[in-house]
Amino acid sequence: MLFASALAWFPAAARADDGPALSPPEVVSAAPAAQWAAIEPADLLVMDLAPDVAGHARRVVIQLLPPPFSQGWVGNIRKLAAAHWWDGTSINRTQDNYVVQWGDPDGDDKARAKPLPAGLITNSEAAYVAPRFALPAGADRALAFGADAYAPETRIIAGWPVGLDRDHAWPLHCYGMVGVGRDNPPDTGSGAELYVVIGQAPRQLDRNIALVGRVIDGIELLSSLPRGTGTIGFYTTASERVPIMAIRNGGDVPGLPRYQLLASDGDSFARYAAARANRRDRFFVVPAGGVDACNVPIPVRRAP
Amino acid sequence: MLFASALAWFPAAARADDGPALSPPEVVSAAPAAQWAAIEPADLLVMDLAPDVAGHARRVVIQLLPPPFSQGWVGNIRKLAAAHWWDGTSINRTQDNYVVQWGDPDGDDKARAKPLPAGLITNSEAAYVAPRFALPAGADRALAFGADAYAPETRIIAGWPVGLDRDHAWPLHCYGMVGVGRDNPPDTGSGAELYVVIGQAPRQLDRNIALVGRVIDGIELLSSLPRGTGTIGFYTTASERVPIMAIRNGGDVPGLPRYQLLASDGDSFARYAAARANRRDRFFVVPAGGVDACNVPIPVRRAP
Repeated sequence: MLFASALAWFPAAARADDGPALSPPEVVSAAPAAQWAAIEPADLLVMDLAPDVAGHARRVVIQLLPPPFSQGWVGNIRKLAAAHWWDGTSINRTQDNYVVQWGDPDGDDKARAKPLPAGLITNSEAAYVAPRFALPAGADRALAFGADAYAPETRIIAGWPVGLDRDHAWPLHCYGMVGVGRDNPPDTGSGAELYVVIGQAPRQLDRNIALVGRVIDGIELLSSLPRGTGTIGFYTTASERVPIMAIRNGGDVPGLPRYQLLASDGDSFARYAAARANRRDRFFVVPAGGVDACNVPIPVRRAP
Repeated sequence: MLFASALAWFPAAARADDGPALSPPEVVSAAPAAQWAAIEPADLLVMDLAPDVAGHARRVVIQLLPPPFSQGWVGNIRKLAAAHWWDGTSINRTQDNYVVQWGDPDGDDKARAKPLPAGLITNSEAAYVAPRFALPAGADRALAFGADAYAPETRIIAGWPVGLDRDHAWPLHCYGMVGVGRDNPPDTGSGAELYVVIGQAPRQLDRNIALVGRVIDGIELLSSLPRGTGTIGFYTTASERVPIMAIRNGGDVPGLPRYQLLASDGDSFARYAAARANRRDRFFVVPAGGVDACNVPIPVRRAP
């Protein structure tokens, strides 16, 4: 809300009294190569959907959350991908302004559910948050967005939107974030059932579900799916479900583009966030003076 | 963020220590008839798109903003609808996590642009906000959500999410809100070019564009459209644009359903908002303790 530190870094030459400033995309385009950080293929999950009606391939790429967050579930997800468990499953739910969800369409039916591979671990609700002391070095100096309705403190730490209280830290349910579906008991989500946020950040889910990553490429293939007409957006017939051909760990996918993100501890990111908070490019009349942590999407590109 | 007043109204019998509470949809379902207020057909705008590939009709219904907000543009929109001006125009832009936009696809080309009807007025940027004193009676007692990154005060007033400072009030760019496209000079939006928010609330647009209403029925027909591949999501070929068959004022549409909204000054709405702020239904582990003004969608139904 206050955003004082980022504003301090925002070059005076680009202030409104000197004419229009760069827009956020222009700031990102101007970022030097050194401000971009590689994303390791081992930290990616690659989902190939059945081709669309015109025969076009549909690939969605997810970046998995790093420690200290959700690593029990992330480990399960790597095992599920290595076992090719998702191949032949489907996208089963699309609820407007909320989530797209995928996994075994028969998962709730014990008699017909697809057996899970051996070696998955059970994670308790305690792991929805991480101890604050486990955050990477520099976290207390990371870009801060102030308190909001859901957290006493919000920051972007090592490229991820995070909520904090005195002792804990947790990832935020921003647009594009991927989480673990579960039943009512909070330890019932294995990671086999996943969802992605496609609307207003449902921050009420923070600390109530494990987040495990975010879509960095191809989210429009999910967000534009027809909304399901069943309860909470479930598709009511098999023909409405989009088949999942394969989900693989990124290290196992030949020819995957090399992805990079704008390093959130760099000068370019600080300028980008400041420009999101105070739009001074030509179109704008009144800069907001602040920005929500979920309204600063992390810039990602394919390596040039 | 504080939400003290709403919590005070939240019945003690439904607190967590007495077992799970009603979920927000359950609170809405339980609302007595007297808590529902009719929406006048005269305050609706009805957009009929060309049928989808399966031949299904596609209708989107928009509720126009009441005074004291944006009435110059709202008046223009009623004139454009009465003149059948939009018939034969199209949806021209779908940008993921941002907006769907419609109007004359040749509007930026002076030689080919469709002439506007006579009698439209020009509105200046001063009208992006209303004087606080012009708000309806009771506004200062309306449901409050505290300060956020974009406004010192946020409330839901007479059914609409509103930001406030000491002297001004303005509608918020929440999911589903409809606004007036314009060029860089802030008085260039007539109302002929409209957009709807289909992602994280782009609150940086508050006070920078005129909002004129919100979609109350059929938003999934817009939010699920394929994303445009041109700059900022414009479609690059005519065949990608969805034709608009007609846009009419609600009073001119025979057989329109009677819509109602849950009155935002009623007890049921207060309980619904409190349940959004503190989920105590069975699935939840940690109630958030607060809610963003854009995360309390106004319940709307067809009259039973």
